[in-house]
Amino acid sequence: MNELNRYDELDDLQMNGWFLWQNSRFFRFGTDGVLLVDFARCKPGMKMLDLCSGTGIVPILMLAKGDADRAVALEIQPYLCDLMRRSRAENHCEDRLEIIEGDLKEIRSLTQGGCYDLVTVNPPYEPVGRGIPGQNPYRELARREEACNLEDVFRAAGYLVKPGGRLAMVHRPYRLGEILQKMEQGGFSPSRLRLVEPKAGESAILILVEGVRSGKRELAIEPSLILHNADGSETEELKQIYRREQK
Amino acid sequence: MNELNRYDELDDLQMNGWFLWQNSRFFRFGTDGVLLVDFARCKPGMKMLDLCSGTGIVPILMLAKGDADRAVALEIQPYLCDLMRRSRAENHCEDRLEIIEGDLKEIRSLTQGGCYDLVTVNPPYEPVGRGIPGQNPYRELARREEACNLEDVFRAAGYLVKPGGRLAMVHRPYRLGEILQKMEQGGFSPSRLRLVEPKAGESAILILVEGVRSGKRELAIEPSLILHNADGSETEELKQIYRREQK
Repeated sequence: MNELNRYDELDDLQMNGWFLWQNSRFFRFGTDGVLLVDFARCKPGMKMLDLCSGTGIVPILMLAKGDADRAVALEIQPYLCDLMRRSRAENHCEDRLEIIEGDLKEIRSLTQGGCYDLVTVNPPYEPVGRGIPGQNPYRELARREEACNLEDVFRAAGYLVKPGGRLAMVHRPYRLGEILQKMEQGGFSPSRLRLVEPKAGESAILILVEGVRSGKRELAIEPSLILHNADGSETEELKQIYRREQK
Repeated sequence: MNELNRYDELDDLQMNGWFLWQNSRFFRFGTDGVLLVDFARCKPGMKMLDLCSGTGIVPILMLAKGDADRAVALEIQPYLCDLMRRSRAENHCEDRLEIIEGDLKEIRSLTQGGCYDLVTVNPPYEPVGRGIPGQNPYRELARREEACNLEDVFRAAGYLVKPGGRLAMVHRPYRLGEILQKMEQGGFSPSRLRLVEPKAGESAILILVEGVRSGKRELAIEPSLILHNADGSETEELKQIYRREQK
């Protein structure tokens, strides 16, 4: 039991009876992971792996929704892997969720490459040295590129994804140029881009980007995802994303 | 008088009494140039030059709106330069619009470099070899990268724009990744991006991209520009863009 554990709590995902262990103070999943699951379009039968998995919200939600039969989660922080293992036990999905505790920079020694249909990632957003560091080192590791940067992510994904397979990422708008460039350098053709706007007519707060492994593809910019109506209520699309039931 | 001239016509820009000579069959200006003028945010006193100027809609509209005191237009096709000269005479702005007939790949021999606050460009959109070529060679040159490609455009702009100055471009969404990458390689930091969507919830049909010459800048993704309401009528913003009066 470390100083973090006293904020641990089990939350109902309100999705077919699934639960998620998280930390009420430092590691609550946000909209980002939920939108990434929707954007990634995983289908049962696909082999998928989630990098920088944190509490495992992306793979666990995919299993909960029925988007994936099986999923693999990679996370560097032992504390977060521990939360994930507890979620796995809670949801009785030991045979469906594989958890790899390790550093994506050493991916070659952690799992087999060239066989994944889909890799997802909600990586640390902020470069080292930008903005004011927070006080909690565990949280800093998840939000700042101290343990891995964009190049590391694309390198790991490039090892994992098979030809024709996809990488789906959620990130911040201000890094779009860098992402498209480094994705291309990492052997993925940017294939889909979607902006996430809080309300219609407001600037994007998140971007969803997909790349296809080898094979030149033209970038499709999809209709922006608007989260809230002018009156603050959730848009129909956001409601659907949050409430889609088992397929 | 060549075979094109029989389609020449003088159109009222409905902007402070300004007119534009265009070709009713092959060279009518579209929304693209109008949106580029709005996006570029030219201000009186700025030194501006428009590459791939065509009929000159961008600089002429800037003069008409009062966004620019003076403007320079560069165009490779003699026929289009001729239309531009006729527009210039019609609008009695010989002292405000400089027309350079020439190839932007030879920009160094055509005008002074390193002195422009703003370069605008509505370049040919399609790479050579993509899609089905049209029948009219003059129009093909304006829509396909036969005479100049993205690298050529950024090289010319890099020569023209002074440090801290800007390049504003309108282009197709599917080339966004390539544009951001080559813009950066050409010495411009992508600074602003705006998607143009026909209606809310529809995929972007155009992108507006700005880069700043030297000086690292974070990319700001601006609220998407929606052209039409659900009922097909023009949005207030589009009306404003088309109807803004002399400032």
